[in-house]
Amino acid sequence: MEADMKREDCLKQELSRILGEYESLRDVMMNHGLAALGDSFVNFVYSLTLSIRYGEPRGGKVTGRILSESLARADLRRYLPSRVNRHFRADAAEALMVYAWIKGAFSIRKAVEELSAHEDLCEGFAELLARAKECLEKPS
Amino acid sequence: MEADMKREDCLKQELSRILGEYESLRDVMMNHGLAALGDSFVNFVYSLTLSIRYGEPRGGKVTGRILSESLARADLRRYLPSRVNRHFRADAAEALMVYAWIKGAFSIRKAVEELSAHEDLCEGFAELLARAKECLEKPS
Repeated sequence: MEADMKREDCLKQELSRILGEYESLRDVMMNHGLAALGDSFVNFVYSLTLSIRYGEPRGGKVTGRILSESLARADLRRYLPSRVNRHFRADAAEALMVYAWIKGAFSIRKAVEELSAHEDLCEGFAELLARAKECLEKPS
Repeated sequence: MEADMKREDCLKQELSRILGEYESLRDVMMNHGLAALGDSFVNFVYSLTLSIRYGEPRGGKVTGRILSESLARADLRRYLPSRVNRHFRADAAEALMVYAWIKGAFSIRKAVEELSAHEDLCEGFAELLARAKECLEKPS
């Protein structure tokens, strides 16, 4: 069990080394590669949440509308250029969430717990985004 | 750190409770809900592998052709009805992989390591599927 924990930790360390240090939240949110990785992270966490909520295995994809709205509720839109479209804002949310996971702001379990705790999916994602922001803005 | 490990473990326990005990590998492989959950698991693990391989965050989706071929290489096609199409075989591979992850056959880190160890993606997935089969066939 302890070896298992170390392995997971080791994966995040390797990813963290690859990512290096971004200069700002905006840099993280505008990274296309992170958005692509984040897309798979967000859909996995969401599918786990659906499975637990309905008591049977399920899969699902989070819409751009939900992610974009969550970004606004977490007061994170102001970090992006003013005229970006919904698709771009959804990408920013995905990038930030997977970056925060890699940097240890929350575990997959914690993310599932947070989404499960809210009837409104937007609220759940907004909470995760707020936690990501808080964690990443702390001086390391 | 230990608390983190316990949380991840607790997530798998909750999922495992939901799934209960399937009667056979075939039951697992033909479960549509597991295939949907497995789709998100496989794409997440694959995206992590790509990110580590290329030294920058990336995302990707595994094709049905790759998954179907991996199932054949792991000698698992014989558990399915004979006339199923490629899409169905890919679903079976996804279902089996996420089921094996939930049941503790391998961690996300281990899955990424296995995929990273093979130039040929099919070989990597075939190894994971073989490990899944081996683990799930053991009497518990």
